[in-house]
Amino acid sequence: MDNKLQRIRAEELRERVVAAEEAASWISDGMKLGLSGFTHSGDAKVVPHALAERGKSERFKVSVYSGASLGADIDRLFAEAGIMEKRLPYQSDPVMRGKINDGEVWYVDEHLSQTAEWVRSGVLGPIDFAIIEALAITEDGMIIPTTSAGNSAIFVKHAENVIVEINMAQPTGFEGIHDIYDAGVQGKRGPIPLENAHGRIGTIGIPVDLEKIRGIVFSDRPDSPSEIVPPDEETERMAGHLLEFLRSEVWSGRLTNSLAPIQSGIGTVSNAVLEGMIDSEFENLEVYSEVMQDVIFDLMDAGKVKFASASAITLSPEKMKQVYGDFEQYRDKLMLRPQEISNHPEIIRRLGLLSINTALEFDIYGNVNSTHVRGTKIMNGIGGSGDFARNARLSIFVTRSTAKDGKISSIVPFASHIDHTEHDVQIVVTEQGYADLRGLAPRERVPLIIENCMHPMYRGQMRAYYAEALKRGGQTPHVLEQAFSWHTRFLETGSMLEE
Amino acid sequence: MDNKLQRIRAEELRERVVAAEEAASWISDGMKLGLSGFTHSGDAKVVPHALAERGKSERFKVSVYSGASLGADIDRLFAEAGIMEKRLPYQSDPVMRGKINDGEVWYVDEHLSQTAEWVRSGVLGPIDFAIIEALAITEDGMIIPTTSAGNSAIFVKHAENVIVEINMAQPTGFEGIHDIYDAGVQGKRGPIPLENAHGRIGTIGIPVDLEKIRGIVFSDRPDSPSEIVPPDEETERMAGHLLEFLRSEVWSGRLTNSLAPIQSGIGTVSNAVLEGMIDSEFENLEVYSEVMQDVIFDLMDAGKVKFASASAITLSPEKMKQVYGDFEQYRDKLMLRPQEISNHPEIIRRLGLLSINTALEFDIYGNVNSTHVRGTKIMNGIGGSGDFARNARLSIFVTRSTAKDGKISSIVPFASHIDHTEHDVQIVVTEQGYADLRGLAPRERVPLIIENCMHPMYRGQMRAYYAEALKRGGQTPHVLEQAFSWHTRFLETGSMLEE
Repeated sequence: MDNKLQRIRAEELRERVVAAEEAASWISDGMKLGLSGFTHSGDAKVVPHALAERGKSERFKVSVYSGASLGADIDRLFAEAGIMEKRLPYQSDPVMRGKINDGEVWYVDEHLSQTAEWVRSGVLGPIDFAIIEALAITEDGMIIPTTSAGNSAIFVKHAENVIVEINMAQPTGFEGIHDIYDAGVQGKRGPIPLENAHGRIGTIGIPVDLEKIRGIVFSDRPDSPSEIVPPDEETERMAGHLLEFLRSEVWSGRLTNSLAPIQSGIGTVSNAVLEGMIDSEFENLEVYSEVMQDVIFDLMDAGKVKFASASAITLSPEKMKQVYGDFEQYRDKLMLRPQEISNHPEIIRRLGLLSINTALEFDIYGNVNSTHVRGTKIMNGIGGSGDFARNARLSIFVTRSTAKDGKISSIVPFASHIDHTEHDVQIVVTEQGYADLRGLAPRERVPLIIENCMHPMYRGQMRAYYAEALKRGGQTPHVLEQAFSWHTRFLETGSMLEE
Repeated sequence: MDNKLQRIRAEELRERVVAAEEAASWISDGMKLGLSGFTHSGDAKVVPHALAERGKSERFKVSVYSGASLGADIDRLFAEAGIMEKRLPYQSDPVMRGKINDGEVWYVDEHLSQTAEWVRSGVLGPIDFAIIEALAITEDGMIIPTTSAGNSAIFVKHAENVIVEINMAQPTGFEGIHDIYDAGVQGKRGPIPLENAHGRIGTIGIPVDLEKIRGIVFSDRPDSPSEIVPPDEETERMAGHLLEFLRSEVWSGRLTNSLAPIQSGIGTVSNAVLEGMIDSEFENLEVYSEVMQDVIFDLMDAGKVKFASASAITLSPEKMKQVYGDFEQYRDKLMLRPQEISNHPEIIRRLGLLSINTALEFDIYGNVNSTHVRGTKIMNGIGGSGDFARNARLSIFVTRSTAKDGKISSIVPFASHIDHTEHDVQIVVTEQGYADLRGLAPRERVPLIIENCMHPMYRGQMRAYYAEALKRGGQTPHVLEQAFSWHTRFLETGSMLEE
């Protein structure tokens, strides 16, 4: 029998195999699609591609709900074809970003834990098609996901129709590493019974009403790899400051050398900061995060991380080759969960995570902008940073103190867009140092942020701003008419630095 | 035997009775105090008063951690005596507010669910004295709280010393209505086993190591009553809009006529809005909130509310007389919980609350300022609004569209302080109407907010601002140099309205 067909173990489904183009033809104008995929891993690929192809000659629009960012150029192709109506909860494609900022695509920036609640309650409307990448469909009708869990299970449960993309290029060793759990309806649910990073509470696949599977498509396109920029001097210094802070927590008795389950946001800086742990004294670490990047496997190889839970695995080409080529050695050390569980406030608070996320900018009181350049143009989205920052035991934000060769200070008088308020930001770290804001009033925070975290070339002008603000008084002193003057100066002169 | 001494059922403690002045004399400069009290109910009164009295002739400072706002003029007396170093997590006294805004008192504005975690982990330093108002101390050594639960249990557990104030003026019928539960240490705790508003998971009193009880003081000072301003035409219209929205949720099948457990922030507007439910079709309601105000008992009397859970009961003088005078009829219909439980993200999300809080101002994208007048001077604090708004099934904010006879628009281009981001604000209601922001991109939100919620006299000038912002583009269009122009215009001309 065809090697591919063996992946469809529920034999009655084998007659539903269709070409990607046919599956794409079922989708019509105004439909809402729920796509698998999280941090460009495990995304449905060939049906979206066929749909984008249709978009070149047909006029229609669809809304796309995903786990997080999609790979395989899906967002780019949809943006270029002009077929995207609404997009949520996260994206990271430059072309799509342009269309969003031009107001041509509605983008709804949501906490990654939240989308499942909104699908469940019907706020986002019925999902017409869930399109889910899989390794296989089991005899008893479960969809085995690939390299991410994302929102796939909730999409399948609430979609009118399901299209399964069986991807022969994904590592078959992933079968068994997923833990699919449905939190249930609000007001009728019980506690989520997960008490540690490695616990199993669900099934290894997504239960599905077989009647809903409208078609099955085969694919052999690998995940889009991530680009990992190696650590540089600045990120190494940031890692050093972070380790210094963690050591002080151990000395004070608030943490042990195995710290707390670690969450680390996607991105070069977070990745580089974790690299710093490889040669540290910290050990027996656990990871409870939304995505496993290269560094998590480096930490496993170094014997530092004993278990990692996330919603996706997203690797560089080299790391993909290494990890997938010898997956058996990692198999018992990791688990992929739906993003509602990886990012659930209940679990994050219970486990008491050590949470590290990247800030785009922050202000002298610790309000963080994670998303918008100069308050208006969005980059990617808030992702899970809010889920974690609000509920973690330690909520840490990292950023370089400047950008664009020093022309932008990442620390500003007033954050031009606020994703995380002063209430949710505990530690801020730059290559200059760190500021521990816990238990501090706003006026206590300012000198720490200026002197520990700002680049020296900007400190003087911030001290002047704050001195002027202090004359006006208040719990949170500001000179409102100058609050965004650094941003407007950049727009006018190309630099935030005063002449 | 003395009637008072019978309240100390653990007989070995009876010899620890002292005068308030003596207990206050144990407190010295630099100490951290954990005081019972939430929304000026159940606060320790006579020892703090004696301490403030000492402050008139002695130089020392203490930090005061409480449940929420304190009554009995404690914050005022401490502020006037100049003995307050740091205050958290919430206060509402005008004199204290003045000292905070003058920078003379450090005020740390925290989510009300968060303080317990910080006490437990030691971030806030050791608590030297917990001073807790009680009805009694049981034979087996439990402190029976009075009209609030607040942070009392966590303070008692982590304090070096405990002073108990037995208040003979508090209603003895309250014994048995508390449900004291300790969530436990992060990373080692299990799920909180509460699955509905009326469940009991803990004990009726606060367990205490009797060795730590340094002294017991008697008091007979009643709680400070709340001032309830009756509904007016505007609040009645707001209630009408809110009911209209709730009806639309019932029609869409997302709610039933018993809605979802209701949380309502403290304050006249929230109170008035709930008044509107008395003559509505909604029934068999449950309340899961942080404070029960008059209206909850009105709703019980009207047969609308069948059970209410909160962390405190705060009533007007008339209502206090009625409710406490006939408490037996309410006894089985209510429960008081530690604020960590009443405000816990885990429980709020699980129960799927219907959450109604008051905004000070919000902007055209739905970012809410709950705390700071013109971005600088704080009013009271964020309280529990963030705990609820982030995790509720429905996160609703209410405010009048204008303040100061129309000279201030509560809807502004850019909120001058952001406590709740666009990600956490679902429905905004003013006397003009409501805007349902769920699932909407920022640019979709703007016309709804302007046309449905703003006062007509400000709509034109906001349309002009937004038109200018749109020319600049972006996911969240703004004219940064004019973002706070409404606030600065008010400071210059006394009105936000353009000439």
